[in-house]
Amino acid sequence: MIQYFSEETSVETVNARMGTTTTPRMAEVMSSLVKHLHAFAKEVHLTQAEWDIGIEFLTKTGQICSGERQEFILLSDVLGFSMLVDAINNRRPAGATENTVFGPFHVENAPIRTMGENISLDGKGESCLFEGKVLDLHGNPIDGACVDVWSDNADGFYDVQQPDIQPKWNNRGRFITGRDGLYAFRGIKPTSYPIPDDGPVGKMLAQMGRHPYRPAHMHFLVTAPGFHKLVTHTFVGDDPYLDSDAVFGVKQTLIAPFERLEDADTLWRSPFDFMLTPE
Amino acid sequence: MIQYFSEETSVETVNARMGTTTTPRMAEVMSSLVKHLHAFAKEVHLTQAEWDIGIEFLTKTGQICSGERQEFILLSDVLGFSMLVDAINNRRPAGATENTVFGPFHVENAPIRTMGENISLDGKGESCLFEGKVLDLHGNPIDGACVDVWSDNADGFYDVQQPDIQPKWNNRGRFITGRDGLYAFRGIKPTSYPIPDDGPVGKMLAQMGRHPYRPAHMHFLVTAPGFHKLVTHTFVGDDPYLDSDAVFGVKQTLIAPFERLEDADTLWRSPFDFMLTPE
Repeated sequence: MIQYFSEETSVETVNARMGTTTTPRMAEVMSSLVKHLHAFAKEVHLTQAEWDIGIEFLTKTGQICSGERQEFILLSDVLGFSMLVDAINNRRPAGATENTVFGPFHVENAPIRTMGENISLDGKGESCLFEGKVLDLHGNPIDGACVDVWSDNADGFYDVQQPDIQPKWNNRGRFITGRDGLYAFRGIKPTSYPIPDDGPVGKMLAQMGRHPYRPAHMHFLVTAPGFHKLVTHTFVGDDPYLDSDAVFGVKQTLIAPFERLEDADTLWRSPFDFMLTPE
Repeated sequence: MIQYFSEETSVETVNARMGTTTTPRMAEVMSSLVKHLHAFAKEVHLTQAEWDIGIEFLTKTGQICSGERQEFILLSDVLGFSMLVDAINNRRPAGATENTVFGPFHVENAPIRTMGENISLDGKGESCLFEGKVLDLHGNPIDGACVDVWSDNADGFYDVQQPDIQPKWNNRGRFITGRDGLYAFRGIKPTSYPIPDDGPVGKMLAQMGRHPYRPAHMHFLVTAPGFHKLVTHTFVGDDPYLDSDAVFGVKQTLIAPFERLEDADTLWRSPFDFMLTPE
């Protein structure tokens, strides 16, 4: 008995077509995608005009992508999809530092700097000492961990967004821990900034009544042999966008102290320890 | 109490962010989309590598789109999503002719031809007389209905796919019914053909173990004042792809007779009546 397409049996009809030459994983992922996409259309009774808008939106989102811009990642980010995939793939035991989104602004092979060195090269912003330890789950220091850090400058832009304005490697650096597990560097107290909102995703956000801002944060990528990679940020606790991060990156445990200092080398100090999970 | 992102509460956290300036419909559609996309990622435990593949796939799908090619419509088609949206928006009473996908090859303002005229202008293929009536649900003929028809040629291409090879308006025409509701035209018995499969969607289909073919069909767009627009095809009943249309367009009621004729003006005859629903 042939099952032709009907509204009632749409999912079964489409998924029955899966071929014998596909992989089990491809079949699983695509069948699930079909099931949930169809459930969406049925739940909202998607109109033909809305479907047209969707096709046009996806097309424009693809066409604005370039070597410097990835609008589909932005779309995934603002729908909480990137954070969800990150969460699903990085379930951690209690006590371990939590992951958050990687973001599009990391650059491989930043300069390896000496402990305490200043990563802010443009002289802007309020200076801040970041320091703490890289530890295992028992609180033992990890020797030879690489603490790769990056942030925007005081104007809210990463160096790669302003290659003609900012010094190369501004607000970036890698620090290698010793046997004490300590890391320390000087940077600036980060500032909040909007994600690129002049494209289809920005327009969609506006139509959803949402702003494009991310609360101020410092990025950390912490790696060490024998431990799971940690991709995270620390957030400035008094940021006005902390409760409404456009990409949902904030977690309670990632809100770091930013202490105002008197008579010190920097205006601020932000202590934070990272607890890595064993592989 | 602030709800930061977590795997468990991902949908609620994202949808709680919907702004007060959005429209109720935008909020409804986007909330449902977020819910179902997150359910998909959770159900299959989508890996970071698979997410990367998805981002790259969507980007390439957008970037191959042009004035002549719409790869996102193709994607919607092969996932049964286009047929589903069509079905949701065109629920009809029993007896009414069913809709099917519009497809990308319709051209506005085809020549209005006289009843019985030949639409096949390239001399290829097996000639076929298409005829029948346009009726209301009570079986009364509809006066002044426009029967807009189009098909591929015997090589499996629409005229717009081969503008340098086929005559303009090859296998296209519009026919206006009189008081008897009759329509009749000569064309060719249609041939099955593959959807464009040299892009990301074709590659995806291959990975799903599916072929890209559509069974042979004649397109009809039937309109009349006071009646709902009918977008449909008639299918050739002995086509080898009837049970595996790449875009799921086949419905049992749309499989038409194709009768072999002897000593007639055409080799084939395909009678089919269209029953329109009142507005």
